[in-house]
Amino acid sequence: MKIIAVLHEALGASKVLSGEALQNRYCHIWQMDETFKAKAVILPHSTEDVSKTLKICHEHRQSVVVHGGLTNLVGSTEVNADNVVISMEKMNTIEELDEKSRSITVQAGVIVEHIQDTAKEKELLFPLNFGARGSAQIGGAISTNAGGLRVFRFGMTRNLVLGLEAVLANGTIVSSLKKIIKNNSGYDIKQLFIGSEGTLGIVTKAVLKLVEAPKSRNSAFVALNDFDKVISFLKYADKMLAGTLSAYELIWARSYQQMTSEKTGKKPPISYGYPFYVLLESLGNDVEKDRLKLEKLLETGLEKGHITDAVPAYNEADLNWFWSIREDTSVLGRDMPYFQRFDVSLPIAQIGNYVEEVQGKLAKINGVVPACAFGHVADGNIHFSIGKQSNSMELKNRINEIVYTPLKALGGSVSAEHGIGLDKKAYLSLCRNEAEIQLMKSLKKTLDPYNILNPGKVLDI
Amino acid sequence: MKIIAVLHEALGASKVLSGEALQNRYCHIWQMDETFKAKAVILPHSTEDVSKTLKICHEHRQSVVVHGGLTNLVGSTEVNADNVVISMEKMNTIEELDEKSRSITVQAGVIVEHIQDTAKEKELLFPLNFGARGSAQIGGAISTNAGGLRVFRFGMTRNLVLGLEAVLANGTIVSSLKKIIKNNSGYDIKQLFIGSEGTLGIVTKAVLKLVEAPKSRNSAFVALNDFDKVISFLKYADKMLAGTLSAYELIWARSYQQMTSEKTGKKPPISYGYPFYVLLESLGNDVEKDRLKLEKLLETGLEKGHITDAVPAYNEADLNWFWSIREDTSVLGRDMPYFQRFDVSLPIAQIGNYVEEVQGKLAKINGVVPACAFGHVADGNIHFSIGKQSNSMELKNRINEIVYTPLKALGGSVSAEHGIGLDKKAYLSLCRNEAEIQLMKSLKKTLDPYNILNPGKVLDI
Repeated sequence: MKIIAVLHEALGASKVLSGEALQNRYCHIWQMDETFKAKAVILPHSTEDVSKTLKICHEHRQSVVVHGGLTNLVGSTEVNADNVVISMEKMNTIEELDEKSRSITVQAGVIVEHIQDTAKEKELLFPLNFGARGSAQIGGAISTNAGGLRVFRFGMTRNLVLGLEAVLANGTIVSSLKKIIKNNSGYDIKQLFIGSEGTLGIVTKAVLKLVEAPKSRNSAFVALNDFDKVISFLKYADKMLAGTLSAYELIWARSYQQMTSEKTGKKPPISYGYPFYVLLESLGNDVEKDRLKLEKLLETGLEKGHITDAVPAYNEADLNWFWSIREDTSVLGRDMPYFQRFDVSLPIAQIGNYVEEVQGKLAKINGVVPACAFGHVADGNIHFSIGKQSNSMELKNRINEIVYTPLKALGGSVSAEHGIGLDKKAYLSLCRNEAEIQLMKSLKKTLDPYNILNPGKVLDI
Repeated sequence: MKIIAVLHEALGASKVLSGEALQNRYCHIWQMDETFKAKAVILPHSTEDVSKTLKICHEHRQSVVVHGGLTNLVGSTEVNADNVVISMEKMNTIEELDEKSRSITVQAGVIVEHIQDTAKEKELLFPLNFGARGSAQIGGAISTNAGGLRVFRFGMTRNLVLGLEAVLANGTIVSSLKKIIKNNSGYDIKQLFIGSEGTLGIVTKAVLKLVEAPKSRNSAFVALNDFDKVISFLKYADKMLAGTLSAYELIWARSYQQMTSEKTGKKPPISYGYPFYVLLESLGNDVEKDRLKLEKLLETGLEKGHITDAVPAYNEADLNWFWSIREDTSVLGRDMPYFQRFDVSLPIAQIGNYVEEVQGKLAKINGVVPACAFGHVADGNIHFSIGKQSNSMELKNRINEIVYTPLKALGGSVSAEHGIGLDKKAYLSLCRNEAEIQLMKSLKKTLDPYNILNPGKVLDI
């Protein structure tokens, strides 16, 4: 294949894997079930390597898929035999941590958790936090505008990116690695590359915002009697903890039972029997006072009838126990041979009814276990795991229709944080109108005229 | 003029002002010094009116300038005799405040302060806050990504926009007025219209994020001995006030003296003689405890040597006194017949030296009073007012060079929050490289192929 020879010539043989080398890499290292098919895998060591690769691919109309930590859930990193893969793993250097600017400059292949740990050493916090932090790369998190557990207080990845470097489809490097918070000089072009799933450019470096590390972390599980209380207690907690509330995670009863069932080895902090459970977190500066503040919140929350039961985490072990319940969502729906996962958002006031209706419809289908729901309710974002007996495409589509269709009228989104990728493309028009999709397409055509960057993902061009 | 007839026909006569009507409007209502020249002023009552207007202007290759509250400082709303003006003042309806979603849906012509007041009635806060809030329209704030006094805690306007409706150059309405915080379904196209100064589309409506209104507001003036202490005390205050620090405004000694000089009628809260003064603010939920927390911060800040003097605001009158000192910047540079204003950003650690060097260079020019500097130092953003005897273009450019040139090497920006408009266009390349500017231009060409939207602003096409 001519293009592989050209890439060899430009980058050196060690950065271009093809043939046997691919099978070793993907079947053994990644332990994939299927044979891995791609024209080649490129391992760039620098932005210039990415630029050279794309220049060649652009000239040869060669499609390109970027691989980070491969934790994407919607098929954004799927590859076929015609694609060249660019895997960012060698670009894994933290270039600078600037304590005064409270920023960190990183290459795209750095693991998210490595950034968290490096910040922590300097008593700083990189607030982005989600389950896959130990393997997800920051370039992927930026390309998908990852959310996670602390969005309520610190925002999505978009809010944490101060500067960005990306390579356009034709190999042009667009670099703006400034350590400044405010920059209204012309269009904020970095926004194009954040959340566009590698279809408009390839992220190579970023300057990320850090915040002062909190000195205290407090959490509590509470039980609530109906969904309106979930909203009223959120408002109340937000007011009472002014500025320190950092997570407010809702777990529906069925999910709570599965997350604390015997086989998980985790005991339930609050007894069963309530319809809703919330795990909340505050990050503050004074261990003792913040603990008292949270306890006061629970006390008055009980008095005022927002909540019906409450258990604070008394120590580090409790914290780990509580959060492991919330974070290990792999136990959900696992009593069935197959399952479907969802990540939707809608106005918070509608969430209770919406979930009830979806569950009602699912319950009527043979071989389907209604949704185990949980999620970042304070952001209007919930996740489902729906267990099922069959893996048929027909059933899959039927479940998708049940979950996604109501979102159009509710002003929601089929993807709060996971992106569109391949899996949700058919449902994009439920939350984006024709004018929006046309505008997305003209952006794609402007930035990637030959449709070489992650083609077929997000949009059909 | 044919196009005026066409606009009349499409919109009705009452929405199209031309000829004498323009002079009355601009010279009397706006009290402009110069005769107002424009082909026509359109007063849309709805998004459809804006769409019709742009469709016609697009067909006639007619240039369009949008007018909001006309508080822009960089010439973004300047008009010439060939332009049609669209003034948003009739689209001034607050369409909905949703307490549960904590969002407010507004038309573009609503005054920022009106949004603040409406939120306040429901014990909610619209955090965007800047001096011109009483006349600036939200559409202008969005189009310029306005910043202001509480960016440190709540972010720029960009962070407060949940949903947006805009009209493209060809009249297409791109409407996405969702009340959701997270929406990773495809490209986040609203980002294109935020901060692009009306050159990529016209903002007609928005859904804005509200937060729980704080119950307590505390402020203090502190004096500091050198710039490093300004940084170290910021870090310290941010840690101690965990999550509640909402403003940290630096004022250099000369500015402080002018802001509290006899003719302002305002007494200085702290005596003269220190090189730096900071006005800080915390927004919390407990009047008494938050006051004690701030006092504790001042006490330990003095003990640890971060600060050398401190005066808290003891009551509402003190708060108003302190903040009126900071907010009335019109007194700066007013001892000279002319002045130039600046709004730059750079990494916080460099700010002290940068200002010193700029002042040193300015001091060598006859008839120029060195910068009165002040600003949002926690965001790396400072403002200058430079007084001067002459209004010559040569002197203006010389001062611009002195202020702007060093920013290139420092990784700063010639515009932190005011935008580029006409006035800073010549300096854009100091903070944006060729690849960035080319990408901006191709976005402009894609969205506005005939260059009818605010032509000549931000970029030369």
